[in-house]
Amino acid sequence: MARIHRALASTAGPVLVVGTGLIGTSVALSLRSVDVSVYLWDLSPVSLALATDMGAGTALVGLNDPVVRTSPPRLVIVAAPPDVAAEIVADCLRRFPSATVTDVASVKTVVADEVQDLLLAANTGAVERSEDAEPREAALERYVGSHPMAGRENAGASYANGDLFVGRPWIVTPTAFSAGFAVTAVRDLAVDLGAVPLELEAQEHDEAVALVSHVPQLVASLLAAQLVDVPRDSLSLAGAGLRDTTRIAASDPRLWTAIIAGNAPQVRRILSDLRDDLDALLNALPSSLTGSGDVLSPGLVGAISTLIRQGNEGVQRIPGKHGSAARRWGHVEVLVPDAPGQLGRLFSELGAIGVNMEDLVLEHSASQPVGLARLMIDPAAVEPAVAALTERGWRVASHSAKAGH
Amino acid sequence: MARIHRALASTAGPVLVVGTGLIGTSVALSLRSVDVSVYLWDLSPVSLALATDMGAGTALVGLNDPVVRTSPPRLVIVAAPPDVAAEIVADCLRRFPSATVTDVASVKTVVADEVQDLLLAANTGAVERSEDAEPREAALERYVGSHPMAGRENAGASYANGDLFVGRPWIVTPTAFSAGFAVTAVRDLAVDLGAVPLELEAQEHDEAVALVSHVPQLVASLLAAQLVDVPRDSLSLAGAGLRDTTRIAASDPRLWTAIIAGNAPQVRRILSDLRDDLDALLNALPSSLTGSGDVLSPGLVGAISTLIRQGNEGVQRIPGKHGSAARRWGHVEVLVPDAPGQLGRLFSELGAIGVNMEDLVLEHSASQPVGLARLMIDPAAVEPAVAALTERGWRVASHSAKAGH
Repeated sequence: MARIHRALASTAGPVLVVGTGLIGTSVALSLRSVDVSVYLWDLSPVSLALATDMGAGTALVGLNDPVVRTSPPRLVIVAAPPDVAAEIVADCLRRFPSATVTDVASVKTVVADEVQDLLLAANTGAVERSEDAEPREAALERYVGSHPMAGRENAGASYANGDLFVGRPWIVTPTAFSAGFAVTAVRDLAVDLGAVPLELEAQEHDEAVALVSHVPQLVASLLAAQLVDVPRDSLSLAGAGLRDTTRIAASDPRLWTAIIAGNAPQVRRILSDLRDDLDALLNALPSSLTGSGDVLSPGLVGAISTLIRQGNEGVQRIPGKHGSAARRWGHVEVLVPDAPGQLGRLFSELGAIGVNMEDLVLEHSASQPVGLARLMIDPAAVEPAVAALTERGWRVASHSAKAGH
Repeated sequence: MARIHRALASTAGPVLVVGTGLIGTSVALSLRSVDVSVYLWDLSPVSLALATDMGAGTALVGLNDPVVRTSPPRLVIVAAPPDVAAEIVADCLRRFPSATVTDVASVKTVVADEVQDLLLAANTGAVERSEDAEPREAALERYVGSHPMAGRENAGASYANGDLFVGRPWIVTPTAFSAGFAVTAVRDLAVDLGAVPLELEAQEHDEAVALVSHVPQLVASLLAAQLVDVPRDSLSLAGAGLRDTTRIAASDPRLWTAIIAGNAPQVRRILSDLRDDLDALLNALPSSLTGSGDVLSPGLVGAISTLIRQGNEGVQRIPGKHGSAARRWGHVEVLVPDAPGQLGRLFSELGAIGVNMEDLVLEHSASQPVGLARLMIDPAAVEPAVAALTERGWRVASHSAKAGH
């Protein structure tokens, strides 16, 4: 019943996946599940063997494997980090003159620029085997960038899963050279994997991800970095606010360094604006308070309140369940004893009561023997839910039938 | 079964609650539920009537109501914003010479200093009715600060709930003058309300909450403020990272302005350190990339990677389910079609399967027809859970029996 049905594959094989890490192997597994023929290649024999064992496709002995000469790939997916993707893309465009080539790196301008430089450069002597029958610019027609927004913190083929992309945005970034057939091939790929294709220019993509992904990552890291040298006792007071705000600071340094370095100019622009706002705030904050008069000084109160209001406005612009759309729900906050099975029991009783949960936030800290489950539900269901939960012995810490966030 | 049993009240009544907003009314309701006698007072007749109607206690006609002369309060709780709390505390210390007085403002140094200034000031002529039988310093013995860490974004008596404080930290901040009996009275109050009392010096408290609460609030606001003027299309790519990082930016400007203004020096110190780290990063980020060589420049890569690593280290120091303690769990990520009832169905089936969920994070954005429920469970239960869920038709996007975060 929960199955999400897929249409038959639009992607025509064989498909070559270069790089059998988490993303590459997941792409390959998903294509195999709809019977598309897949070749696999990775510089690491271990990684390649792992992906092959998982049923992700046929391992090549190299990119010049005889099999790709007799039945060449029609689509090549380069699933390598941003700092090596362009070189592999350029190589594959030259090797496979009938293939559309895409990469899945999280930054697009820097990869597209480098692909172009490599292909248009006069000296192609470094390429071991060139099939330069087509003009160099024609090769660029067959390149289209991609960014499936579905990374997880566990890297490697062993975490791969054919359902990784289901329901996720898959950004498609054609260049000025990209041909229509190549764009269509990459969009079809996204749809075959269950993803939602979304076309953007590389520059637009990089600006958008700087804003929604790279800058939040750095801001979370900046905040979490302030916790390194503080007494552990202070941190025992941490609640949901600090935990939410720093959660993504736990991300992988190697991967994120490559991503952010590849998008440095866009990241810099937004961080500079943030620094200006921070400076304005710091200028208004006194380094000591000599009396209650200081607290009420108009400059101080104005600077803080302006910033918090702007933050209110900004957060309301984020679409999705926790953003503006959430405002149509009421909430019920239930106290949950911090013991095994209590959360599961709450959820099965909610099912028995017939409450349709729209969203849920859990809150608990180390010093608390009790957690708080904040259930977002239909405002009309709030009063009956509170009554039914109370009757079953649950304690409700707060509730509101007024749509909130 | 889910009930959390309370001991009988240690607090001796009558108790006077001054300020019948969310916190004051919740304190009063909780005390009433264990049969402690409660007087209520608020400058707003509407707010006072609302609290009285909810059964929170007996409304006074004023702080000089005849009833408090015949049967004076033994404990006074001032539940007013930080900018007015001190004046009410000082007034109550003078009016009720046998009462312990506490306030519940979220900043403690500024309130304690002002209480002391008001009581030790030579000119007490402004006080309408002084029972100055005791020396002024003796009155200070009866004052102890409090900070129940249980605020919600919905203010006002109508959201009040006697269970608001259950399992929450209740910080108790004695001053240099506070007597043992007064500290005990406030600790007993916290325990009677189901909270966990924790004693700190006012300065320690203010530094700790600057770090775990006030600075995260401002950083979330600074980040969310950058979203105000950007194209709405960019924001459609927002995922869980941006939403988590900015969630608390939706907080009430009036309340937070008073809190942060009252703790400005501590907040300033931490924010200045953060600004220095931000400046170091900005200095390393180039404003344009001229080729792949730039991306790999050691200064750039080093600056980003140092920051992300420090962030890793900081976030690991946060105690609690999402922090270091979480590392003992495995996870299963289940795809949930974004339709009413699907989440509830997942939870009841998890109950039927017998999976004990330790924690849960939900992820979904506007552009996604499918959400992701990340279940944290016992590593040994991961494989059986995946098998049972798959058999019931659920799609598992990823799983790991390795303890992660």
